[in-house]
Amino acid sequence: MAEEDVHTIRGFTKDRAEALTDGIFATVMTILILSLVVPVITSGNVDQMLSADLISLVPNVVTYVMSFLVLGTIWIGHNNIFRYLERAESKVQWINMAFLLGVGFIPFTTALLGRYPFDHIASLIYGINLLGVAIVYNFFFGYALMEKLLHREVQVKFFKTALKRSSVGILVYLIGIIFSFVNPEISLGLYIIMPIYYMALGTISGKEAIH
Amino acid sequence: MAEEDVHTIRGFTKDRAEALTDGIFATVMTILILSLVVPVITSGNVDQMLSADLISLVPNVVTYVMSFLVLGTIWIGHNNIFRYLERAESKVQWINMAFLLGVGFIPFTTALLGRYPFDHIASLIYGINLLGVAIVYNFFFGYALMEKLLHREVQVKFFKTALKRSSVGILVYLIGIIFSFVNPEISLGLYIIMPIYYMALGTISGKEAIH
Amino acid sequence: MAEEDVHTIRGFTKDRAEALTDGIFATVMTILILSLVVPVITSGNVDQMLSADLISLVPNVVTYVMSFLVLGTIWIGHNNIFRYLERAESKVQWINMAFLLGVGFIPFTTALLGRYPFDHIASLIYGINLLGVAIVYNFFFGYALMEKLLHREVQVKFFKTALKRSSVGILVYLIGIIFSFVNPEISLGLYIIMPIYYMALGTISGKEAIH
Amino acid sequence: MAEEDVHTIRGFTKDRAEALTDGIFATVMTILILSLVVPVITSGNVDQMLSADLISLVPNVVTYVMSFLVLGTIWIGHNNIFRYLERAESKVQWINMAFLLGVGFIPFTTALLGRYPFDHIASLIYGINLLGVAIVYNFFFGYALMEKLLHREVQVKFFKTALKRSSVGILVYLIGIIFSFVNPEISLGLYIIMPIYYMALGTISGKEAIH
Repeated sequence: MAEEDVHTIRGFTKDRAEALTDGIFATVMTILILSLVVPVITSGNVDQMLSADLISLVPNVVTYVMSFLVLGTIWIGHNNIFRYLERAESKVQWINMAFLLGVGFIPFTTALLGRYPFDHIASLIYGINLLGVAIVYNFFFGYALMEKLLHREVQVKFFKTALKRSSVGILVYLIGIIFSFVNPEISLGLYIIMPIYYMALGTISGKEAIH
Repeated sequence: MAEEDVHTIRGFTKDRAEALTDGIFATVMTILILSLVVPVITSGNVDQMLSADLISLVPNVVTYVMSFLVLGTIWIGHNNIFRYLERAESKVQWINMAFLLGVGFIPFTTALLGRYPFDHIASLIYGINLLGVAIVYNFFFGYALMEKLLHREVQVKFFKTALKRSSVGILVYLIGIIFSFVNPEISLGLYIIMPIYYMALGTISGKEAIH
Repeated sequence: MAEEDVHTIRGFTKDRAEALTDGIFATVMTILILSLVVPVITSGNVDQMLSADLISLVPNVVTYVMSFLVLGTIWIGHNNIFRYLERAESKVQWINMAFLLGVGFIPFTTALLGRYPFDHIASLIYGINLLGVAIVYNFFFGYALMEKLLHREVQVKFFKTALKRSSVGILVYLIGIIFSFVNPEISLGLYIIMPIYYMALGTISGKEAIH
Repeated sequence: MAEEDVHTIRGFTKDRAEALTDGIFATVMTILILSLVVPVITSGNVDQMLSADLISLVPNVVTYVMSFLVLGTIWIGHNNIFRYLERAESKVQWINMAFLLGVGFIPFTTALLGRYPFDHIASLIYGINLLGVAIVYNFFFGYALMEKLLHREVQVKFFKTALKRSSVGILVYLIGIIFSFVNPEISLGLYIIMPIYYMALGTISGKEAIH
């Protein structure tokens, strides 16, 4: 068996790691909606009571949209990392698992923040969750650069720009966590701005895949 | 690095966007059924009480089937758009995200309409959800045409027909929304007719992929 | 544009229909487990009460395993149909949708039967659900044969055997439905036997892919 | 039809079995989080009560992380088996189904252990679930070796090492089950150590794909 064959056989293929990641993102993004529960009205003016109950769900709608778009952003980012990966060894698989573990918490922390949008604890926990995901994500980027796992033709410069951009996420979630102690309303505002910022970057510089 | 390579490396591949979309559709179509809750009967004639409770679930069954088929219709449509896409740049990814965000609301609005099938508010919200999805879907079609993102050999005429057909959806959901204010029963009827109409189009003109 | 190109462009690719189907089966098979709810014990001897509560969940475990294996069986069958399909036109897509719609009901009817395993209504509804799925499945097989959608090298004889075998399902679920009116225990027994029968066929004649 | 063609047509392709497996793992890993329920606080000091309620969820967080990483470990292992499979006949499909059936129980047994982390019954059931999955997994490995279903170039030695390593799982879960009768705290400790052990193996010997 030639050296090359050994590599092919022992090295991980990316396909299934991508399939698992896409499946987890798809399920996470879908079950976010389970935080919106249909109100049960058994007596009185159904239409009037339903309106009132649905209005109380507005914060849940806001956090649903917010987390959906954040997940969309980091999924597009993950997409980029994986496309340029030349090898996906065991360590890469485990960094990806840690990343997905953090992503898996998002339906819970989103539902928590949706129920208590201006509460310190809820705001703190959401911030910690997203900060954790952002850190692992950036670690992944950095690790791939350091270990030279990427396609030769991808310019390091290109990747460094992306790294810088995604570091903004770490900074903003860190500030959000700090504000949760004094003013959770500002934290919520920062959490809402994040996906809008990335979306704007992604759609304005339309031809650029990495952002 | 040649100009072409840059394009290949920077341009998005469609595969993973399709995988995420299929995953979200699959999960959404499956969790629709969670609006059907098994009745809990603790005393009395189980068989008789179960019958009564299950009969009260009939509207939920109707809205489940209706939304499942609507999702089937728009999934087939999405299939068509993506098959002909030559490039899937960042903007396309974000239009797709907005589309999936709307799709993600359907389990909630379906459960709401299933519980209150003849209520104004429930009917209005379901209509707005589906109208939103239809608008983003048509915008996607139009954007792809305008930006010439499609495979050269796909006739514009072909696509325009599809665009016209899917515009019917926008019109019908708009009418459904209006009727929700005066006669939610008519809205429900319109919502039920929609997937049947598209299914008929799709199965009668069996050889035509786009509809 | 050559005639062949038109066909390629207009004809459906099977890939995404398979992806959607796999996604729906995966989600359905997973959310089956949601019918098993962790008991809440707030006072008394936790260990003793937990045992009692878990024993009452045994019928749910049985119906979970039963439906999981039935879904496994029909997924393997679907696998076979699609592998031999040469074209997947619009009509095929819609037959597949009807099939998936029936599959989507299984988590509900399974949870219902798990809660009321010996009840007439629960037994009847489970039987109707599975009968419906079996009928659409066989219709799919028959349609593919009739319309000559299959790979030339697949012998008709081969397919007819498979068709005969899967017709057993229709017969057994029909008998199960009839027995639900007089003796739901026998229905349950028949429902349990079905996946075991197919599993035995599949593992005994190990080299034969279709069963 | 040549002998070879028969083989190709009758033999299973691996692609869809991998797709179903990835879909089930993705959904199972995601719905694990549903055992974390957002506390409902209607009166009193929200912040204080929320802290108390969230602290009571810590065992659920621990079991969530533990099961997520166990699932990650066995998914990577499954990945390895399937990559080297040359044929995936009907028997292989059914062994895979049995494997997935066991995996499908994990959200329930994890939620049970999360609620009653130091209880004998909960600890016993979790242990039995994971032991079952480990046994089927090893049986799969052994079966593939015995029936020579693997790619010629994969050294038997290589596989035997992997087999030995995964046997550690069987042993540890067996010990965990025994301890659940006398000291469930030790069982929990063992259950927590398992994924950490495999993760360490996977990341220390970073270039080795099988572990």
